[in-house]
Amino acid sequence: MVVEDLANRRLLKVHHNLVEMTHLVEVAMNEATSALLNADLSLAQKIITQDDAINAINNSIEQNCLEILSANDLTPTEIRMTVASLRMSTTLERMGDLAAHVAKQARLRYPQVSVPDELKPTFARMGEIANEIVKRTGQVIETGSLQFAADMAKNDEEMDAIHRELFSTVLSPEWRHGVESAIDTTLLSRFYERFADHGVTIARRVAFVVTGEAYGMSDLSQIDED
Amino acid sequence: MVVEDLANRRLLKVHHNLVEMTHLVEVAMNEATSALLNADLSLAQKIITQDDAINAINNSIEQNCLEILSANDLTPTEIRMTVASLRMSTTLERMGDLAAHVAKQARLRYPQVSVPDELKPTFARMGEIANEIVKRTGQVIETGSLQFAADMAKNDEEMDAIHRELFSTVLSPEWRHGVESAIDTTLLSRFYERFADHGVTIARRVAFVVTGEAYGMSDLSQIDED
Repeated sequence: MVVEDLANRRLLKVHHNLVEMTHLVEVAMNEATSALLNADLSLAQKIITQDDAINAINNSIEQNCLEILSANDLTPTEIRMTVASLRMSTTLERMGDLAAHVAKQARLRYPQVSVPDELKPTFARMGEIANEIVKRTGQVIETGSLQFAADMAKNDEEMDAIHRELFSTVLSPEWRHGVESAIDTTLLSRFYERFADHGVTIARRVAFVVTGEAYGMSDLSQIDED
Repeated sequence: MVVEDLANRRLLKVHHNLVEMTHLVEVAMNEATSALLNADLSLAQKIITQDDAINAINNSIEQNCLEILSANDLTPTEIRMTVASLRMSTTLERMGDLAAHVAKQARLRYPQVSVPDELKPTFARMGEIANEIVKRTGQVIETGSLQFAADMAKNDEEMDAIHRELFSTVLSPEWRHGVESAIDTTLLSRFYERFADHGVTIARRVAFVVTGEAYGMSDLSQIDED
């Protein structure tokens, strides 16, 4: 059927756009971590500017989804995919914003590094986990396969554990870096933690499309969002 | 036409649900501010528990929107309203989460009050602005009128100014309350500021439905989201 084919072709384009967005978000967060740890001002600036490209794809996906829905001849699966795509796109856009937040923090403290030397390995690890999560998010979107869900849940647990640990670190009597650095550390940690949560949220969305059940993946059901 | 009537009836239900959600979010944030300023543990606990009710309405709206879209005989306006409703519902759910975050902070420090005495009026004011914003959000959703948009933009500016001011306060040499209190203050301030931003985002969505143009309201176009 022509209309359905049209919807499918448009859905395919939305799908390509989601995959492209995930790649851009991956690059942005990797570069943000690098800008943060090396106090690299021009890299930070680049990430902040390029966030517009991610926002533009988000707008284009929304437009395409509205056109898909206007076809008025969709299968239930196509409708579900379109709605899920809209939500995933919003979430990816937020992940891009969080990468930009990290970059803005790097820019704010330049030429200083925004985190104390002894916490650099911790933030490097958060950057690695963020990278693993967003890579798996891309795989889940691209393949529709949920085989990466358990790994994502493990990544997310480690991220949460580091986030909690950093709270204890900045509050311990041994903290020697003052209030500003404690706040920077806490906010940055929160950006990474939120980034990971959003990645897991996308996997849950894909699970919803694949299984037809919201929150069907028990490993992924305990995420606290804001 | 029967199918269109059905869609309209369901859209009306979604609309009622959005208005109901806004009221619940309004109550939650008002009570969260009260729990915060009075270190009221049982009120904090109540808000945290009742966040489930807000989440349940969000799920029900999503289900209804999927059913509306399945009717496959919608006008472009109905499609746009349905998609906008989905997004507004997600945003309201996040606003509920932020109220719960404030309540969790109150619970965490109980029986202490989470903010220093001299900042209580500041957080009381943030609570008032949050209340004004969410009330206007409700009016915008209920009436579709954008006459409150300018007021919301003003509310949001005041919230941003207080948020920035609190950063300076906790970083000033006069700050006498230590690192933990500085972090609590910063995070709480961020919750209120995000809450206001989300309210403004909803007004932008309504503007999109009413005018057909994304980001058509210049007063509301400068919001930074994450």
